[in-house]
Amino acid sequence: MKAFSNLLMASIVAVSVGAAIAFSADDAASEDSLLFGGKLPAGYRDWKLISVAHEEGNLNDLRAILGNDIAIQAYRQGRLPFPDGAIIARLAWSYVPSEENNKVFGRVQSFVAGPPTNVQFMVKDGKNYASTGGWGIAQFNDGKPFSIVVSDCFSCHVPVKDRDFVYTRYAP
Amino acid sequence: MKAFSNLLMASIVAVSVGAAIAFSADDAASEDSLLFGGKLPAGYRDWKLISVAHEEGNLNDLRAILGNDIAIQAYRQGRLPFPDGAIIARLAWSYVPSEENNKVFGRVQSFVAGPPTNVQFMVKDGKNYASTGGWGIAQFNDGKPFSIVVSDCFSCHVPVKDRDFVYTRYAP
Repeated sequence: MKAFSNLLMASIVAVSVGAAIAFSADDAASEDSLLFGGKLPAGYRDWKLISVAHEEGNLNDLRAILGNDIAIQAYRQGRLPFPDGAIIARLAWSYVPSEENNKVFGRVQSFVAGPPTNVQFMVKDGKNYASTGGWGIAQFNDGKPFSIVVSDCFSCHVPVKDRDFVYTRYAP
Repeated sequence: MKAFSNLLMASIVAVSVGAAIAFSADDAASEDSLLFGGKLPAGYRDWKLISVAHEEGNLNDLRAILGNDIAIQAYRQGRLPFPDGAIIARLAWSYVPSEENNKVFGRVQSFVAGPPTNVQFMVKDGKNYASTGGWGIAQFNDGKPFSIVVSDCFSCHVPVKDRDFVYTRYAP
């Protein structure tokens, strides 16, 4: 379980959103699982686009990183650190070849979003998450809370401390 | 130029948005280049996300497909054909490995959006684009109109006629 947890951790850290998440029943049951009241943030699927990414390896997904208005405004203004209330969402879908697209190309080169995998959120709250750079982090699987950040994951974010611990850059 | 044009055509057709575009000065200079008045549609970068994709090969990009409110509503309601006024935008960026992400992974597996390549739009207007399934199509490079749809490209969209000639599916 430890190796699995570490693998997932490393994956998620490098994911663009830079979310650090521990995957254990204990964490999911902690009081932090009440982030967003244990529900998906309202309207997140309508948020504006920050960027897109692809992870190979075990994750093998395509992803979109969206931001609420506070996060988007901070990105566009180059404002760091992100202000309280900023939320960054990382949506991911299985990475699947598109047969109908490839037929037109005459070769396998087109990959599209398949079934969704999970959604992760980073919410900036300097007071409540002071020990993790001011970021509370949560993952939802099938719309249900799956895990939340624990402080021992946070070291993976230090390399991008100068960007307020956020990996994803805004795509113009 | 013909081969180049065909290659680009095939690429774009399979691109998810299913845009069919001809790349010649003649086309760009035609009266159709006044689509959107020759300007990028206002606020398109704020539109909601339809899906994401990756093209290998010569395109080698990561892309986000966004929709204006009319397009998003049609997608979510499963409404076909798309109503007049629907606009689908395909943004693309160079596909680049993320060194800082890969450092955390310990392997090359993370790819992110690099510099933007171009933006394409499909706008539904059954009256003015009756000969191309009701879709007017434009591409912008560096914010400037680059090309517009010509009817001889349209055959590539026929395979998805039952989805109103649009390749991209909504990613939940």
